Amino acid sequence: MAQLVVPAVAALAGALAGKHITESRSGAKSEKNEETSVAFNADAHQNYDHEADARRHRHLAQQWPEARSSIVVVRIHADDVKTPDNWVPRHPNLIRLTGKHPFNVEADLPELFDYGFISPANLHVVRNHGAVPRLAWETHRIAIGGCARQSAYPLRRAPLIRRPPNVPDAFELGMDELAAMPTITFPCLVVCAGNRRKEQNMIKKSIGFNWGPSAVGNTYWKGVPLRLLLNRAGIHAPGPGARFVCLAGPEGELPKSYDGQDGGPGSYGTSIDMETALDPTCDVIVAFEQNGERLHPDHGFPCRVLIPGYIGGRMIKFLTKVIVTDGESKNFYHFNDNRVLPVGVDAETATADGWWFKEEYIINNLNINGAIAYPKHEEVIPAAAKTYTIKGYAYSGGGRKVIRAEVSFDQGQSWKLGDVVVREKPRWAAGSSGDKAKHWCWCHWEIKVNASAIASANEICFRAFDQSQNSMPERPTWNVMGMLNNPWYRVRVHAHPSGGVILEHPTVAGPTPGGWMQKMAAEKSGGELLWGWGGEGGPAAPPRPTARA
Amino acid sequence: MAQLVVPAVAALAGALAGKHITESRSGAKSEKNEETSVAFNADAHQNYDHEADARRHRHLAQQWPEARSSIVVVRIHADDVKTPDNWVPRHPNLIRLTGKHPFNVEADLPELFDYGFISPANLHVVRNHGAVPRLAWETHRIAIGGCARQSAYPLRRAPLIRRPPNVPDAFELGMDELAAMPTITFPCLVVCAGNRRKEQNMIKKSIGFNWGPSAVGNTYWKGVPLRLLLNRAGIHAPGPGARFVCLAGPEGELPKSYDGQDGGPGSYGTSIDMETALDPTCDVIVAFEQNGERLHPDHGFPCRVLIPGYIGGRMIKFLTKVIVTDGESKNFYHFNDNRVLPVGVDAETATADGWWFKEEYIINNLNINGAIAYPKHEEVIPAAAKTYTIKGYAYSGGGRKVIRAEVSFDQGQSWKLGDVVVREKPRWAAGSSGDKAKHWCWCHWEIKVNASAIASANEICFRAFDQSQNSMPERPTWNVMGMLNNPWYRVRVHAHPSGGVILEHPTVAGPTPGGWMQKMAAEKSGGELLWGWGGEGGPAAPPRPTARA
Repeated sequence: MAQLVVPAVAALAGALAGKHITESRSGAKSEKNEETSVAFNADAHQNYDHEADARRHRHLAQQWPEARSSIVVVRIHADDVKTPDNWVPRHPNLIRLTGKHPFNVEADLPELFDYGFISPANLHVVRNHGAVPRLAWETHRIAIGGCARQSAYPLRRAPLIRRPPNVPDAFELGMDELAAMPTITFPCLVVCAGNRRKEQNMIKKSIGFNWGPSAVGNTYWKGVPLRLLLNRAGIHAPGPGARFVCLAGPEGELPKSYDGQDGGPGSYGTSIDMETALDPTCDVIVAFEQNGERLHPDHGFPCRVLIPGYIGGRMIKFLTKVIVTDGESKNFYHFNDNRVLPVGVDAETATADGWWFKEEYIINNLNINGAIAYPKHEEVIPAAAKTYTIKGYAYSGGGRKVIRAEVSFDQGQSWKLGDVVVREKPRWAAGSSGDKAKHWCWCHWEIKVNASAIASANEICFRAFDQSQNSMPERPTWNVMGMLNNPWYRVRVHAHPSGGVILEHPTVAGPTPGGWMQKMAAEKSGGELLWGWGGEGGPAAPPRPTARA
Repeated sequence: MAQLVVPAVAALAGALAGKHITESRSGAKSEKNEETSVAFNADAHQNYDHEADARRHRHLAQQWPEARSSIVVVRIHADDVKTPDNWVPRHPNLIRLTGKHPFNVEADLPELFDYGFISPANLHVVRNHGAVPRLAWETHRIAIGGCARQSAYPLRRAPLIRRPPNVPDAFELGMDELAAMPTITFPCLVVCAGNRRKEQNMIKKSIGFNWGPSAVGNTYWKGVPLRLLLNRAGIHAPGPGARFVCLAGPEGELPKSYDGQDGGPGSYGTSIDMETALDPTCDVIVAFEQNGERLHPDHGFPCRVLIPGYIGGRMIKFLTKVIVTDGESKNFYHFNDNRVLPVGVDAETATADGWWFKEEYIINNLNINGAIAYPKHEEVIPAAAKTYTIKGYAYSGGGRKVIRAEVSFDQGQSWKLGDVVVREKPRWAAGSSGDKAKHWCWCHWEIKVNASAIASANEICFRAFDQSQNSMPERPTWNVMGMLNNPWYRVRVHAHPSGGVILEHPTVAGPTPGGWMQKMAAEKSGGELLWGWGGEGGPAAPPRPTARA
């Protein structure tokens, strides 16, 4: 599988520098040439020249910011030298959440935010379960096929005729062939479902690690619509034997393995329903470029699935298998990961009582969420400041537009409406008020206030609404995986010895201590935190600002 | 227009009794014969025989419950005798929210709830802006056409060629012709966007009247997909000149009129985007039967639009015009109604600052919502009770499934998961965990608890989550129209002289006084209520149960 020339870093540098891009692009049709047999591509923003925009942002795909000369210098981070990933160049500013290895990282939110709407690929969230598979463009293959699993629905004449294969024209293809197919390019947010999980872990330890509020990345992606691969395999509609599409990375990707799972031993896999895979307006693609360059190994080189509006956990990296099935994926991770179980269910009861397998608790679409980027943690606003511009991001799932970003200085008694200052052009519908318009990206919002409004407050609360009037809840609801945590983002205000105020975020990403939630948890000796916004068990409001010890 | 034979009630009785149904059904194709040129109807529950189920529920379309003999007795309610609606038979138990006329009503929630999943047509929410148009099946016409409005997007060769009509094959049709087209039948919830508005009005008066929690109805609907009408007119895809579909009722329906609006003088109209209208999985229909019988006049006889998952305000009754346009409807009510404006905007600033015309604040899809039906308002749970089963309903918008219904006895410190006991078979996707499955109905939930859990609580809080992890918020957020109000539904518990407890809902629908929110508002002299769950300005939790004065 791994056939990169030694030294690997040199081969990788070539792959990342995009030298194959021109070749493959010459063979690829532009998105405007894509088949027009569907009713939904006449007019909307999906026909914008995203490709050109992606090229303009190619600098954001560089290996790391200082490698700007024509000589590509690839540096391996000291933390990676003694790991299986010692061939993967990585941005030094990424915050490692699970030690040196495997590589699970987020950027510092203000640093990522300052790049604006399009994120640098190398500050984009990474969730790796094990060592990065060392794959080569030239040899990587993707198999599109079916399986022999019996349909759950009896066929009418099943005893009389041989059951036809559920995929008439199974095939395999390599990367050059993939890249020569019709492609689409557009910006899209990828979010780990664990974004903001550290806040949940302060209430009560979940089974996941400590993501801060920056488990996100909003980049350009280019790829081939998954439906075109399915069409080529003879699948044009959902039906018996073809209700789900199972997606899996390479065998042996993960350190642990499980018997009889889709994708093979040691694979990470999941499934999506056939309707989503085939719907052109869902924009599911097999992506092979990010920000105008081939994928970085941490982001799935040579190709990954992108499912806009979904949690990142379903966007299989290093895509190797596309399997059409009657039922959901039997991969271990499809059922034992990426679920939000009800509040009373802990790790033991989840397994003992079969909660992992109840269909209600799968998570696919993102929920409405966001965070404050500025003021950042431990930022000091001086007493002399007259105004201050609070800034942050927000997003929702399913293509839903963020319509309101609001801050409160009085624990939600009143709210000030912020301005959404950066927003994508929505895909697929006539106007952005159209309900079928698809918003696949984050937005950036800001609100300029009198500095005194912050100085006299206990905390700054942020919440957002989406176009279905879904809003970030006031309180978190703990769940055993700590996923999709989206309560109001609260930044506490403390008096600073300088006479100004100093801001405190709820947590600090990764193992670094800090944040008012961690302090609150420590005061309760690390146990279950009674989340006391207004009910019994906690203060109705935090104390008025006092000098910080 | 109104050509019913006098006495109108007799003609109406015939129409309601369904004598034409057999005729029209013989000419109509079943849903299984519907065109299959789209990719999404191979296998899902939309092919269930809903038609038969609708016939079984035909008794729920009767004029009112006691009219069960073969002789149809039509009674006009005393409140209607001196109004223009003195020909419309109505259920005597409906609660009139805006006096005798116009007719805006909801049922008592426990009464509606007790009918189960399918609601009686005559206990279904009604929102009338004026007198019910007196229309006849035989003479009613629907015009499907375009308009001369210039496209906002310049055509390439516009100066050289005459602009083609935006609707190539405009046409009109009557009801028999409509009923002879292919139809689909399915159960669907209709909700007024003002459901639960009275709670908002207790905080601060909105510009809408006092809906309780029963502005809903979940019935079978049969009709012709709107996209088939558009297809027949030559519209197969969205594009310049054909981005929106404007829908309007008859001219003169409303007491007030506005200049130059789509739909004509005195019409009630709105628009939806073309993508929604054309997408078969959105199930937009022109409905002409409810629960297996022709529509009741209050529900839009002879036909109305049904847009599953949307607020009721866009489901135009008495449908007269379908106009394909480049931009949104210019009908007064499209912009000046059915909006959720941010919390700081009141009636004056909404108009002065143009808030009605900002695209962010239109509401289309419903949000997650629900209420407790039992225990009902002023129900007494005796001291001797060992267990009690709390029951209620929940729904969400956009086809999203309700996945969790929970109650709390400690203001949200902990939650108990209820059982969803009645749920529709989702339409359109392989499994109900599929993200493209469409849930168009309410669900019923219940949870059996020890009666002591209620007796020792201050209040019962209810919340629900949908499959996108959207949840009902803890606190309401006031908006000038009081729409889509969906905070936790809280029922207060008071000691009862009998030794048991008596339950108090937040409000009582319509002008009837009662409910803990109204008392709270009265204590603040009817002014702005500081909504004090945890912030400053109100108690963190209501007082412990005491004997009720």
